[in-house]
Amino acid sequence: MPVINIKMTHEDGGATKEQKEELSKGITELFAKIFGRGASSAVVIIEELNTDNYAIGGKTITQIRNEVKK
Amino acid sequence: MPVINIKMTHEDGGATKEQKEELSKGITELFAKIFGRGASSAVVIIEELNTDNYAIGGKTITQIRNEVKK
Amino acid sequence: MPVINIKMTHEDGGATKEQKEELSKGITELFAKIFGRGASSAVVIIEELNTDNYAIGGKTITQIRNEVKK
Amino acid sequence: MPVINIKMTHEDGGATKEQKEELSKGITELFAKIFGRGASSAVVIIEELNTDNYAIGGKTITQIRNEVKK
Amino acid sequence: MPVINIKMTHEDGGATKEQKEELSKGITELFAKIFGRGASSAVVIIEELNTDNYAIGGKTITQIRNEVKK
Amino acid sequence: MPVINIKMTHEDGGATKEQKEELSKGITELFAKIFGRGASSAVVIIEELNTDNYAIGGKTITQIRNEVKK
Repeated sequence: MPVINIKMTHEDGGATKEQKEELSKGITELFAKIFGRGASSAVVIIEELNTDNYAIGGKTITQIRNEVKK
Repeated sequence: MPVINIKMTHEDGGATKEQKEELSKGITELFAKIFGRGASSAVVIIEELNTDNYAIGGKTITQIRNEVKK
Repeated sequence: MPVINIKMTHEDGGATKEQKEELSKGITELFAKIFGRGASSAVVIIEELNTDNYAIGGKTITQIRNEVKK
Repeated sequence: MPVINIKMTHEDGGATKEQKEELSKGITELFAKIFGRGASSAVVIIEELNTDNYAIGGKTITQIRNEVKK
Repeated sequence: MPVINIKMTHEDGGATKEQKEELSKGITELFAKIFGRGASSAVVIIEELNTDNYAIGGKTITQIRNEVKK
Repeated sequence: MPVINIKMTHEDGGATKEQKEELSKGITELFAKIFGRGASSAVVIIEELNTDNYAIGGKTITQIRNEVKK
């Protein structure tokens, strides 16, 4: 307890093994500090998605990144 | 707000970039029309799954598609 | 197929039964129009969350709504 | 490992404590039997939803149950 | 981007408004520090569950807490 | 009804087609036995994750497996 699920876009080669370890460890420690439990049982799941598959305000991240570049 | 997550099977070559854009835009507009908010902040996430990994009534989509073909 | 999950904040008395029906029907029709399947099997799940439990950019919707009011 | 999430409708007074225990135990044992792991670390999360908030084929379970009753 | 979903048990009166704000802010800052994006667009969703509805290793948290008390 | 989502690590070549069929069928039957519904409408979705993307107690499964090997 708890289960923490992160859905992020796969960009710039994707999250590295080290970044995933840092994120998993950091979120677990943060949760345990705030709630006083979960240090050994927290589950962290990271899912990376193509920028075509994640949209904000009706535009995909692919579309948003392309607009910024222009 | 809101977050809308779509889990669908990857069939016939998978959803195209254009279909994903149309789905993201359409769902966001529909939500905003009904609830009067979310037009700029709605998040849409599309996840495609192998037909072996999605089952209805205890049978995978792979099994269901094969039965139909017979 | 597909499964569509909507997580939205519970505001202004919450989504009405009619709004939920309209959203479920509208998303299902939109999906079926784009992909040519799912009209009878699409699952739509709507989850409403307290505005303290949904944050954007590190601020809860409660905080964001209060800032706007000021 | 794994994390198993069940989203079901809240009907007939809802799932009892005993049903939830039986489901959690049964799914964990089934997974461990098939994959040879997870017996002590599987997480099972059960979420119950109002029948207005769960739709199949564009109709909410409330609508579907009412049609059956007629 | 990203969307971060936390499913935790509702215990000891539940997470306070301040704890939810701290968690939302802390996770968003951690993610932004590691990946260099998401500071203004990260979505954090916190869901609290009855201890009967969350199980580890085939036992609900209710069962686990009761065993510890004995 | 219901929707059951399984997130598991991809290990030892991954879950086979047969294991996925057995899991989907078994969970559906178990649910139907306990609750008396869902036999034909239960949806089961299986997602496999890299061992770098699943952590317990702040350590990724990759790290946990490596410690065991030592």
